[in-house]
Amino acid sequence: MEHQLNVKWRTIKFSGEQSVDTDEDIAAEFPLTIRLDGEEFATIVCSPSDLTDLVVGFLASEGVIRTMDDIKRMSLDEDRGFAYVDLHRPQSTAKELHSKRIIGSCCGKSRQFYYHNDARTAKTIVGGASIAAERCFELMGRMQAGSACFHQTGGVHNAALFDEEGDMVVRTDIGRHNALDKLFGHCLRHRVPAKSRIIAFSGRLSSEVVLKAAKIGCPILLSKSAPTDLALRLGVDLGLTCVGFIRANSMNVYTHPERIIRQ
Amino acid sequence: MEHQLNVKWRTIKFSGEQSVDTDEDIAAEFPLTIRLDGEEFATIVCSPSDLTDLVVGFLASEGVIRTMDDIKRMSLDEDRGFAYVDLHRPQSTAKELHSKRIIGSCCGKSRQFYYHNDARTAKTIVGGASIAAERCFELMGRMQAGSACFHQTGGVHNAALFDEEGDMVVRTDIGRHNALDKLFGHCLRHRVPAKSRIIAFSGRLSSEVVLKAAKIGCPILLSKSAPTDLALRLGVDLGLTCVGFIRANSMNVYTHPERIIRQ
Repeated sequence: MEHQLNVKWRTIKFSGEQSVDTDEDIAAEFPLTIRLDGEEFATIVCSPSDLTDLVVGFLASEGVIRTMDDIKRMSLDEDRGFAYVDLHRPQSTAKELHSKRIIGSCCGKSRQFYYHNDARTAKTIVGGASIAAERCFELMGRMQAGSACFHQTGGVHNAALFDEEGDMVVRTDIGRHNALDKLFGHCLRHRVPAKSRIIAFSGRLSSEVVLKAAKIGCPILLSKSAPTDLALRLGVDLGLTCVGFIRANSMNVYTHPERIIRQ
Repeated sequence: MEHQLNVKWRTIKFSGEQSVDTDEDIAAEFPLTIRLDGEEFATIVCSPSDLTDLVVGFLASEGVIRTMDDIKRMSLDEDRGFAYVDLHRPQSTAKELHSKRIIGSCCGKSRQFYYHNDARTAKTIVGGASIAAERCFELMGRMQAGSACFHQTGGVHNAALFDEEGDMVVRTDIGRHNALDKLFGHCLRHRVPAKSRIIAFSGRLSSEVVLKAAKIGCPILLSKSAPTDLALRLGVDLGLTCVGFIRANSMNVYTHPERIIRQ
């Protein structure tokens, strides 16, 4: 079964005192339960696209896997919303590490496994890609233009990965972390060398987003939105170039500006 | 110690090919660990304001408490970022319920305790407040105008509770769920009858946001942003009036329009 990313919803549209009944496009929210080595591990509520990327990226983000080689077998039941993953090594260690939780900020308490797994998986980045200032505006514009779902529903986040030639991979989700996890999964599945890549992202730069970019191993993180102070402090520590508020032809460079090439 | 909601960050501001060094206001991200009956329960990364409201609202959202009477004692160590809560009844039951998780959508995987606690705490709302269409625009405008932090950093969400007289309580946080939890905590601490109130919210209407409004017991949820289909289906089931995309003098009414009074 192919799941729809958008669904029609009967809506009363007010404009001032006038109202009309219409059918609006609404972003679909899909629950996907991951069973790991036969046990329920997590259920992610997501947009029903690129689910294999999402599962792989989620498990890597959580520190459960490092590469595709850690996965023995994996299957997806899209009808029922289940992903079945078996690992080569049992994941008891991972479970113990999850017991102390630091829950992140994106929506207040999104990330359980803040310190322990992050300490194991977030990499400090040295060197890697650089980018001309004006190209930041261009890449952000291309990412935004490429998202049909956003234009239809206004309810999704986008994360795009650009290579040196400017080729773009976009992933879309109602959850901004899912969009990044889908990119992460794509990188792992196709062994993409993220260090030479650039991420453009529609969401805010919280600590968790910066940690995720570091886990992916991508040195430049471009965002349309605002950062937090903790995100920027992590950006400094992890060697990430964090750019925010990219709009038309303006932007703020917060950390590691040495990768931004001026005219 | 009083924590700052905004901090200054040395920033290179680009406009086209020009760049200047400035100090920008950045939203602070503060980790607050809740220890429940002597054990670490969760760490929330949040804006450091209204922390007592946040702890109370978070515990109520998670189904750990129902009223303030469930709390035996509570103290806050703002310097170190710890909240200590002891309950009258041990929380072993709550812990068992957490074992099967449904993780929500806000940023992909924010809510752990989706089904079990939600089933216990989300209330179906019958009757309650109603509102004139044009007043929806006005309340949204007042909420937005009231947030100094947003105007300075662009990096926070707001949730406001309005009573029949139009008096407003606003809570602000980098995490949209935290902003709602702070309102929830305010309602519980001051025994506010939420059923006659209206919530205005800057964030999107995901399933988790709708569930939280239902838990608070507030029948009308006004949002500046887009909904998801699951959120709207829950809105129908739980008796909530969900309004989205409120901008200047237009809006979309998605569920239970009987509470919206037309001219």
